[in-house]
Amino acid sequence: ERPRHQGMAKNTNMRWRLPLVCLLWEVAMIVLFGVFVRFGAEADAHWEEEKREMNLTSDIENDFYFRYPSFQDVHVMIFVGFGFLMTFLKRYGFGAVGFNFLLAAFGIQWALLMQGWFHSFKDGKILIGVENLINADFCVGSVCIAFGAILGKTSPIQLLVMTLFQVTLFSVNEYILLNLLHVKDAGGSMTIHTFGAYFGLTVTRVLYRPNLEQSKDKQGSVYHSDLFAMIGTLYLWMYWPSFNSAISDHGDAQHRSAINTYCSLAACVLTTMAFSSMLQKKGKLDMVHIQNATLAGGVAVGTSAEMMLTPYGSLIVGSISGIVSTVGYVYFTPFLESRLHIQDTCGIHNLHAMPGLIGGIVGAITAAAATEDVYGKEGFIKAFDFTGVYQTRTPSIQGGFQAAGIVVSLLMAFVGGAIVGGILKLPIWGDAAAENCFEDGVYWEVPEDEESDVYHMHNPDKPASP
Amino acid sequence: ERPRHQGMAKNTNMRWRLPLVCLLWEVAMIVLFGVFVRFGAEADAHWEEEKREMNLTSDIENDFYFRYPSFQDVHVMIFVGFGFLMTFLKRYGFGAVGFNFLLAAFGIQWALLMQGWFHSFKDGKILIGVENLINADFCVGSVCIAFGAILGKTSPIQLLVMTLFQVTLFSVNEYILLNLLHVKDAGGSMTIHTFGAYFGLTVTRVLYRPNLEQSKDKQGSVYHSDLFAMIGTLYLWMYWPSFNSAISDHGDAQHRSAINTYCSLAACVLTTMAFSSMLQKKGKLDMVHIQNATLAGGVAVGTSAEMMLTPYGSLIVGSISGIVSTVGYVYFTPFLESRLHIQDTCGIHNLHAMPGLIGGIVGAITAAAATEDVYGKEGFIKAFDFTGVYQTRTPSIQGGFQAAGIVVSLLMAFVGGAIVGGILKLPIWGDAAAENCFEDGVYWEVPEDEESDVYHMHNPDKPASP
Amino acid sequence: ERPRHQGMAKNTNMRWRLPLVCLLWEVAMIVLFGVFVRFGAEADAHWEEEKREMNLTSDIENDFYFRYPSFQDVHVMIFVGFGFLMTFLKRYGFGAVGFNFLLAAFGIQWALLMQGWFHSFKDGKILIGVENLINADFCVGSVCIAFGAILGKTSPIQLLVMTLFQVTLFSVNEYILLNLLHVKDAGGSMTIHTFGAYFGLTVTRVLYRPNLEQSKDKQGSVYHSDLFAMIGTLYLWMYWPSFNSAISDHGDAQHRSAINTYCSLAACVLTTMAFSSMLQKKGKLDMVHIQNATLAGGVAVGTSAEMMLTPYGSLIVGSISGIVSTVGYVYFTPFLESRLHIQDTCGIHNLHAMPGLIGGIVGAITAAAATEDVYGKEGFIKAFDFTGVYQTRTPSIQGGFQAAGIVVSLLMAFVGGAIVGGILKLPIWGDAAAENCFEDGVYWEVPEDEESDVYHMHNPDKPASP
Repeated sequence: ERPRHQGMAKNTNMRWRLPLVCLLWEVAMIVLFGVFVRFGAEADAHWEEEKREMNLTSDIENDFYFRYPSFQDVHVMIFVGFGFLMTFLKRYGFGAVGFNFLLAAFGIQWALLMQGWFHSFKDGKILIGVENLINADFCVGSVCIAFGAILGKTSPIQLLVMTLFQVTLFSVNEYILLNLLHVKDAGGSMTIHTFGAYFGLTVTRVLYRPNLEQSKDKQGSVYHSDLFAMIGTLYLWMYWPSFNSAISDHGDAQHRSAINTYCSLAACVLTTMAFSSMLQKKGKLDMVHIQNATLAGGVAVGTSAEMMLTPYGSLIVGSISGIVSTVGYVYFTPFLESRLHIQDTCGIHNLHAMPGLIGGIVGAITAAAATEDVYGKEGFIKAFDFTGVYQTRTPSIQGGFQAAGIVVSLLMAFVGGAIVGGILKLPIWGDAAAENCFEDGVYWEVPEDEESDVYHMHNPDKPASP
Repeated sequence: ERPRHQGMAKNTNMRWRLPLVCLLWEVAMIVLFGVFVRFGAEADAHWEEEKREMNLTSDIENDFYFRYPSFQDVHVMIFVGFGFLMTFLKRYGFGAVGFNFLLAAFGIQWALLMQGWFHSFKDGKILIGVENLINADFCVGSVCIAFGAILGKTSPIQLLVMTLFQVTLFSVNEYILLNLLHVKDAGGSMTIHTFGAYFGLTVTRVLYRPNLEQSKDKQGSVYHSDLFAMIGTLYLWMYWPSFNSAISDHGDAQHRSAINTYCSLAACVLTTMAFSSMLQKKGKLDMVHIQNATLAGGVAVGTSAEMMLTPYGSLIVGSISGIVSTVGYVYFTPFLESRLHIQDTCGIHNLHAMPGLIGGIVGAITAAAATEDVYGKEGFIKAFDFTGVYQTRTPSIQGGFQAAGIVVSLLMAFVGGAIVGGILKLPIWGDAAAENCFEDGVYWEVPEDEESDVYHMHNPDKPASP
Repeated sequence: ERPRHQGMAKNTNMRWRLPLVCLLWEVAMIVLFGVFVRFGAEADAHWEEEKREMNLTSDIENDFYFRYPSFQDVHVMIFVGFGFLMTFLKRYGFGAVGFNFLLAAFGIQWALLMQGWFHSFKDGKILIGVENLINADFCVGSVCIAFGAILGKTSPIQLLVMTLFQVTLFSVNEYILLNLLHVKDAGGSMTIHTFGAYFGLTVTRVLYRPNLEQSKDKQGSVYHSDLFAMIGTLYLWMYWPSFNSAISDHGDAQHRSAINTYCSLAACVLTTMAFSSMLQKKGKLDMVHIQNATLAGGVAVGTSAEMMLTPYGSLIVGSISGIVSTVGYVYFTPFLESRLHIQDTCGIHNLHAMPGLIGGIVGAITAAAATEDVYGKEGFIKAFDFTGVYQTRTPSIQGGFQAAGIVVSLLMAFVGGAIVGGILKLPIWGDAAAENCFEDGVYWEVPEDEESDVYHMHNPDKPASP
């Protein structure tokens, strides 16, 4: 019991640090929003006049009706999906759901600004609409992914600091890919998953804790925590078609993205179950795989879902990514930890990093293989936005740029993650000692679970405390 | 153990009372629906002809497609959101989810009638469509709020009686505000939250139980009950933009409401976390605050979200309401209980009453500050419906009427709550003794949780009952 | 302890069998999708040209925007709704959610093909869009229902074999009803519920286990497993209006289906609560009824919801089905088990079979009672699709065909269920011995729930293992 008490010497009291960071930040947000953020034309009260100018005959043409249902699904994925997926740990459910809630609410405000400056800036103002909300959620999604690698090992302040930097870097990387390289990545295989996961893995590498086996007993799940995690898994799985189609072009592109993602995810479940059973001596299924690897199919069609990947192409991609992800949990994660000192709590390397790379590559190939025959003359131009300065781009050149997008995302993740990891290593952020990792009691008021209360209370005739 | 057995003397057997109330009620509903309720034009099989008359070219112009996704989100908030939010108590999960389910299903039928008579009555018939379903859910939302104050202390029959009266009073109050005062309140800061919360607080004051500390041991949470409650919290939080925009005007108003609410809620999370940590000696976060105060931002923009509040205005409102709500949990709730004898199980004073008042005031100010410059000439008239007899209203007069709406809602809540509380105090409704409050075993068949079953069953080689 | 060890002699190791089935199947799917499945016109990149041909002026006319929100709701019902509804068993939560996930992901792929060949086949290709995704989910819904009867008693391979056959039979039955008999059944009272439930009941009859009382101790719930199940219940209940309206005609039919289902479900909750209390000596409510019988109202308007059933008609149907279903749980289920040897784990006879029959009958009556006066001339033809060879059909003839649809569904279910049950009885599928039924440990890695871990860990000063 010695190390435990030594560990308590670390000052994890958040009383002044956390409020200070949150309140200062919120004041900054209010000021910056006050200076910069206004309603876009479709959310502004001048919409009636706008409608006339745009020659729209009905309110139903407002972008709100094209995208709001998808936005809400994405919103659920970020807050319930990621939040509950991480509740599998027996004693870190408050931290999983609660810190995810905190960092996402913090991050979306900053993302509205950062992405707004890059993409929605007009006459000195950022004009926002439902698409901005989706993009802010997407951006924060990459932080939730990185959070998975360091889950249980960091203080809430470290998470906020990481969010601040990661949202910034995400926006720069996204700008480079979408605007400079003119790359397609609607579901974010590269911008969200590859970047987010390798960023998180680099951060956790820098924050390597040699004595983490001291909290080994808390790194597992209990029966009901695994069921809570399945809530997260299923909402991610079910709504992923909305995720990949949320910001695609109106019409066929949104429709196609949803179908491709649906197919990929269905296939992924089967190969995950197959390999989960196959790789265990007694052939039993492992909840870790079912909770995570079943989702790899959504990640892996993130770039190509809006292209003419076709349903069977989606099945192939989903099947492969389920296998890669499950194999990753069994073989790569232990290897990464023991050899490379990468402690990856949720296994984001298997769920986001590798499938994200697959997604980027599949996207590059699908783009390079595009023909006017398959897309139709107009569809071809519209799908890849080959207009203006890009009207001379050929599919194979586009494929090359797509591939370049993967490389840029990786570089941004490694360099950014190393720097941010270094900042988080400063001994001022209030992280817990190794033996108190994965333990809600450090940062949360945790109720006393006396057995007598829980298990005998239903019988009113029986004394509550014997 | 004496008081417990004395308490059991109270007759909590529901066997004839509950079925009688439910069945009589349902028969009454069938008769009244048979006499009054018919499909509105957009849900009636005559729609093809209607479409021609209204000069609509496409089925997509049917109000169903403007509002159904928001309706479903609101529906989730009422049944899962409120239901699970109240499962935080260690031994009242069945009552929280189950009674919420009962009273809401009961209430929406009566609300369709009451609101229908006031707002959708034509040639002797109530013509309903998706907007009526949303409004019925809204109305019942105010009952779910009041339920939060008396959670664990009332019998299901008391809840049904309260629902019957509260839905009636809600509809009258709503009619006064929306039709007589011509007030805007799309997200219901006044009609739903202020009215519902002060109504519930008045009822719980009348039902004051001096010996409630006898069930003190059951008034807390356990680890997993707090996680169940977070399901409720997150669904309320995520879908609140749909709540506040569900019945706004088509187009920009719905769009704007969603954005304002999104911003307000994000800010609210940060100030809640800040104050939750700050107000606790060791700086630890309190799940009660995270579960509740993070939602205050949605309540507080309920009136103004569809106005040109602007994103930074929303951040300010959200920030303030998170602070007020968290401070309320720490200081006001104990004060209300000890000094004013208001026993408020879920702290609805902090989550709905105070933020509801803030919402009403912010709405009045935002309306009073409206200008044609900000809204555009057409937008100004449309936003406040300054047509017909109201075409001469100025923003400052509108602001005055908005403020009057707050006062009316408060009066209705206090007077109505006092009367209904008096009715519920009659000793015929089968409520439990003080020492059996917050205990599912009184009204529910509760499974025997033998430890041996739960904890050793997973090992098939081990005997189940050692 | 003897029988237990004898039972373990059964080989439940899935290591090679499950992977083999999953992988072979997935390869087959890829090949068949490659040969047959392509994007429909509204999801294909040629959409711009298609739009011109169809004379559509806006992308919002794409079927995606009419149906995608409903699709997502249905998707949640299949995976979270059915999955969590079945987690009520104390030690079968992984199997409930996990196997439901597996069989549904497996089934939707095969359903896309089977239903595609029957309904979307053109020039040698199956052309899919969002409506196909909904129909695939619907088809798999009938398998989830059947799963409820055999829950806890079958191996995952048996479930996959059953899914394969049931999806096939479902599609044939659906083709007979919708195309040959020209029957209306948008919410699937006959095709999904009646067929699925009687199929499952026949299968469980064939698989009768005489010694099932050996696992009696695991057939109950624990407190938190009942709360998990309520997540499933509520999502099914809330989204059922989407289920019944998802594939109805655009416009009024979708709108009307949602309203009728909303009303029916509300009434059903009240009669369920009434009878649950009335049929128990102490008048206490039973979670089994609340979790299940409250949903019968959705099943029972599955056929008629899109017709002019009217809101009060819906209340009547919902009220009756709640009563029938609750009475079924109390009296029929024990009878079926003891006399007819039908072991129905989830009571699908009460939730799906009887309400499904009610639904078919109500549909037949509502169709037979239809008049041009009620529907309008155009609405009448559109509602029942009385065009082409069917333009001479009268309502009463339609009613007769509707009734025939019930009979065909029953026959398909009994014959199909008997054959498939026989196949599943072969001793090669790896099902567990009677004493290991309802136990996740057979097919899943289950975490060790040491009490010390769960209950004392929150106190960092206390040793974790005393």
